[in-house]
Order: sequence, then structure tokens, then C-alpha cells
Amino acid sequence: MSPPFARRSTDRAGGGAVPTRAEGAIDLHYSATPNGQKVAIMLEELGLSYRVTPYDIFEGDHLTEEFGRINPNYKLPAIVDREPDDGAGPITVFESGAILQYLADKYGAFLAPRGRERSAAIQWLTWQVAGLGPMGGQASHFLRYAPPGQEYGIERYRRELDRLLRVLNKRLEESAYVAGPDYTIADMAIWPGRAASFVVGIGLETYPAIHRWFEAVRVRPAVERVMTHPDLAAPGRYLGRTQKLSEREWSNMFGDRMHGAVD
Amino acid sequence: MSPPFARRSTDRAGGGAVPTRAEGAIDLHYSATPNGQKVAIMLEELGLSYRVTPYDIFEGDHLTEEFGRINPNYKLPAIVDREPDDGAGPITVFESGAILQYLADKYGAFLAPRGRERSAAIQWLTWQVAGLGPMGGQASHFLRYAPPGQEYGIERYRRELDRLLRVLNKRLEESAYVAGPDYTIADMAIWPGRAASFVVGIGLETYPAIHRWFEAVRVRPAVERVMTHPDLAAPGRYLGRTQKLSEREWSNMFGDRMHGAVD
Repeated sequence: MSPPFARRSTDRAGGGAVPTRAEGAIDLHYSATPNGQKVAIMLEELGLSYRVTPYDIFEGDHLTEEFGRINPNYKLPAIVDREPDDGAGPITVFESGAILQYLADKYGAFLAPRGRERSAAIQWLTWQVAGLGPMGGQASHFLRYAPPGQEYGIERYRRELDRLLRVLNKRLEESAYVAGPDYTIADMAIWPGRAASFVVGIGLETYPAIHRWFEAVRVRPAVERVMTHPDLAAPGRYLGRTQKLSEREWSNMFGDRMHGAVD
Repeated sequence: MSPPFARRSTDRAGGGAVPTRAEGAIDLHYSATPNGQKVAIMLEELGLSYRVTPYDIFEGDHLTEEFGRINPNYKLPAIVDREPDDGAGPITVFESGAILQYLADKYGAFLAPRGRERSAAIQWLTWQVAGLGPMGGQASHFLRYAPPGQEYGIERYRRELDRLLRVLNKRLEESAYVAGPDYTIADMAIWPGRAASFVVGIGLETYPAIHRWFEAVRVRPAVERVMTHPDLAAPGRYLGRTQKLSEREWSNMFGDRMHGAVD
């Protein structure tokens, strides 16, 4: 497991890891997957300092009792907020969609406090975490990790991913950002998932409105800082990986060690 | 498609459909799946009157342009609130997790307005819509609907469902309800999903803390009203169904008609 490193959101990309503890309140438990990147983008957008603890999920870094106390579901990312608003002890937050909401409400940004604007962002955020995310994950699993002969699964998820992207494209034909005229946590949730479409060979140029939106989000300084930081982006480490897993890596990701961590 | 019917939450189970328009502000677009039942339970818990429009998803009732304007993702449930707090026109809300949050915030119940209690409920709600729900859905798909020879998929999802239920059981060993000492929308989101474990042959008695919690929620009057109402519970219509789908039903549920609805 790599040592924690500090990020100041004003760090420019390429500055590399800062080997001291940050002043910020937030500890980010991280692997460089789309779910992790959602939260890193939010922390950068908020202009916070935060400490990153990197986990190599192929190595099973997260399958420990210690991490189980942070996320009882043993998935990355998770955060620990050492300075919650109520002034009581640190609080842990797991599930990327819940972390985005927690940070948006704590810092009062990228999510309207109430009303239909708030609901629109929560609806599309939920659509990502309940639909696009899991279905992209299954497409990726069947295509890259499953044993040969899984054509039914590959086609099922590739096709559902395409359907979901057409839903998103239609939405973005009528709206600058996913939840309306403003950039919100729904955009942050959806944007990193573009990776799943690359993995299954769906080019975003097939969806013109998504492509327009994708570029508009890509050039945001916060997004650029995440996607060009070697440890936050980790290009090729997860999403470009097509080789077979070792027996140990399979066990950590999908097999006995992963399933056994809960007990 | 069946005609809409009104529900007053004070109606006792077995009273049957009320063929007049309700006074309530909420229209519930509904099929009797676990996702639909989450929202019906919440409306009953809130003591609201509401109008139910039932959809037969096997028949493709939801694959219409009209419903696409309510939910651009063409899934049930969805609601239309004809009396939103801002006094402007009706608002539509889709994704069961987003509907639960919307109703909890509008009516100020079953979700703390802020702080760690709120976040705990949102975390477990998100865990359901992003994990237990989709994985239960995939287990059900591979076991009941996929063509023969999908042992890999069946085993993948059955095992992940068991893992998730062990996570939940551990949580409920230390907590009366899922998010803490109080019953919240997280319990309402998770409870109807018990059905997925029945479908794949996992008995809840395997998980003693879930079993204790399941019974405590089952006897709530609001839950009983939903689960004994013939049109809201629809026993056997979706979850007990093991027979093969007709070509037309397959197309509506998983095939060309479902995928074609978006355009």
C-alpha cells in the first residue's frame, strides 16, 4: 500500500505527490477508478486541501478490518471528515453518490439547497449510481475479466450501456449540463464514467450532445488537475487493463478474498 | 393499461381500488416491483392521498412518448407532484432513490434535515440503489430470464447478493434500523428488495439480524397496507414469475422495444 499524500486543490497538475499531511479536514480513501475520480473532482472543485490514501484494489489493500470500519461494504472511495459541522468526532461517508451529496451540502456548492433544482441533480446523480455506473461496471466485467464464452453477458450490458448513453444524449440536447443550466454533482458523477464506454468500444462521438458536454467538463481546471495527476488519474492502471488477472488478483477483485472480507 | 386509481393512506388493505381521482398532490406511476413498492410504502408512511397509475411492464405500458416525458429513462416508478413547494408547475421525479429523498425533504419525515444522521441514511439508501438493487436485479435476470448456459452470471450475482446481505446483516447487528436508531427512507429502500433473495433461493433466516429487522418493518401498518393491497403488491405478477417470456414480452423487458423507446 502506498503512503498517503496531501493534495492542495491549487496544486497544478504534474506537481506530484506532496509527502506531508494536508491541513484539510477530509481524508480521501482512494483508488483511481471512475468512482474515485468523481470525489477527487468534487474536492478539487471545492478548492479544499485533503489527504489521499491510495489503495491498490488488485492487491486487496481495501480488504482489511481497518478499512471495513470506514466502509462496511469494502469499496472505494470513502472519506473521513475530521471536522464535521456538528463539532463531534470524525464521520465516515461511503458510496460515491452519498459522498458527493455530503460534500455539496457541507460546503454549499454544486447542489441547490432545496426545490426542483436540487431534485433534478439528485435524480441524475441517482441515475448514474443506480444505472450507468453498475451497468458500465458489468459491461467491463464481462468483456475484460469474465472467462470466455460470456457473449450473452457482454451483449446484454453493451446494449444497455448504449441505451443509457442515448438517454443521456437526449437530455444533453435540451440542457447545458445534466441537471439543468448549472454544473452540479450530477455532472461530476457521470463524467468519469465515460471510461466504461471506451472499454466496451463505444465512442462518445456517436452521441453528439454528450461529446459537447464531455469537452465542456473536461477543460474545467479541477477536472484537468485530477485527470493529469499521475496518482489520481492512474491512466492504464484500471481502465486500460485488458490482461488476465493473476489468481490472487482475481480473488481480491471478484473471488474468495473479496467475499470473505465481510465476516 | 389499467385505469388509475386513488389511494388514501388510511385505506385498509383489501379495500381494493378506489375508482375516483384522489385529492392528493402526488401521482404515482407504478408497477408492483420492489422499486415501486419503496415509493408506495413511503406515501403510506407519510399518510398522503395519492393517485396510482398502474403499468404492466411485460406489456410495455411504459414504452410510450408520454411516459418518456415523465421519466426519460423509461423505468418505473416515477411521480408527478402537482403541488410542489415553489408553487410553480408540476414537477416530475424519477429514480426510486431520488423520489424517496424528494418526498422526505418535502414532508420533513424519515430523513434528518442535516448532519450525520442524514448522511447515514443517504449512504445506506445509495448502497441499496447502487449495489443491492442492481445486483439483485442481475441475479434475477440471469436466473429467470436469460437463456440456458449462463451459470457464470448466475453464480456471480448470487454470490455478490449474499455478500451484500452479509454486509447488511453485520450493520443490523449493531443498529436497530439500517441508518441508526430511527426508521428512515433507507429501510424503505432496502425492505422490498428481500424479494430478490427469495428469487435466487437465499432465505433471510440465514441472516439473523436482517430477519429481526425484516419482521419489525413488515408489521408496520403502512408496509402491511402496501403488501396486502392486490394492485400494489401484485404477488406473483413479477417476483414469482418463473415461466418463459413470450417474444413480445422479452422485447418489452429486455429487447428491441425497450431499447428503441429512447429515440
